[in-house]
Amino acid sequence: MTGYVQNKDAVLKRLRRIEGQIRGLQRMVDDEVYCIDVLTQVSAATRALESVALGLLQNHLSHCVSDAIAEGGQTAELKVREASEAISRLVRS
Amino acid sequence: MTGYVQNKDAVLKRLRRIEGQIRGLQRMVDDEVYCIDVLTQVSAATRALESVALGLLQNHLSHCVSDAIAEGGQTAELKVREASEAISRLVRS
Amino acid sequence: MTGYVQNKDAVLKRLRRIEGQIRGLQRMVDDEVYCIDVLTQVSAATRALESVALGLLQNHLSHCVSDAIAEGGQTAELKVREASEAISRLVRS
Amino acid sequence: MTGYVQNKDAVLKRLRRIEGQIRGLQRMVDDEVYCIDVLTQVSAATRALESVALGLLQNHLSHCVSDAIAEGGQTAELKVREASEAISRLVRS
Repeated sequence: MTGYVQNKDAVLKRLRRIEGQIRGLQRMVDDEVYCIDVLTQVSAATRALESVALGLLQNHLSHCVSDAIAEGGQTAELKVREASEAISRLVRS
Repeated sequence: MTGYVQNKDAVLKRLRRIEGQIRGLQRMVDDEVYCIDVLTQVSAATRALESVALGLLQNHLSHCVSDAIAEGGQTAELKVREASEAISRLVRS
Repeated sequence: MTGYVQNKDAVLKRLRRIEGQIRGLQRMVDDEVYCIDVLTQVSAATRALESVALGLLQNHLSHCVSDAIAEGGQTAELKVREASEAISRLVRS
Repeated sequence: MTGYVQNKDAVLKRLRRIEGQIRGLQRMVDDEVYCIDVLTQVSAATRALESVALGLLQNHLSHCVSDAIAEGGQTAELKVREASEAISRLVRS
């Protein structure tokens, strides 16, 4: 099961907006816009990506991990460890 | 219930080591050590604090959140949302 | 003056690769790929964006800020403050 | 030269406050306070440490790096690269 299935359209919409931000960045660099203004837009795109990640993670915890725990057994433990590792990658990226 | 109870001594040991790092930073600043060397130590202490947070979070998911989900009902949903908010604070700090 | 002018092609190449990563993410979400695998790719794209930011910042410091300091006067001070604010946004994003 | 010399007392005051936060965290863990409340305090201490780092960095840029650039030559280039590396460590920690 995939945790974000019910929010699939919203996730796709956010990703398309981020794709637009990245293309906007290319235009800025091509037009040799001032570094600091480019950096401000890079920070905005990074935050938008982080929001997508946090949304996916919340869906994952409330569906995939919750279902595994409700079923019990070894899968539950494995899913919690897997989620913790994804959180670590996110915090450190 | 508190998720880190079984790891309490290990968490305390890590926090005491971080306290030592912060006192070390005070000595460095007092001795007017070169900025970049102070910054390297600040980054090390920040990473150590993040590790403590990630450890606490994993314990929280595998005990408090898992127990709430196993019991079911509204508490489960609430615990997942609460954990997601803590993860957001962590990612953005 | 724009600090990344001499690296413009390299910056554009990196941004196009990130655009490809974001489009890849859209395909993954559309195909309902497992949450954790999507998250791993989001972390990779976030790190790639951070690398672009750090590159732009280094160029900005070694050209725009350095030039302003070499000229001296109030502009120098202003440029250092502006760069510090951009660094803060980056660290907190 | 050390960039934060004129702000030494302010930096020390901030570090002592962070030391107090870390000791507060030890008491919370010892009292088995609820995980999420401990995590909130860890995030607060992490942000406080980041503020110290950003302050040190701004001082470093406006004193050490600026002085090196004003003098010119190879040292200037070296200082800019060194500062950029410290910024990278900070962004990734």
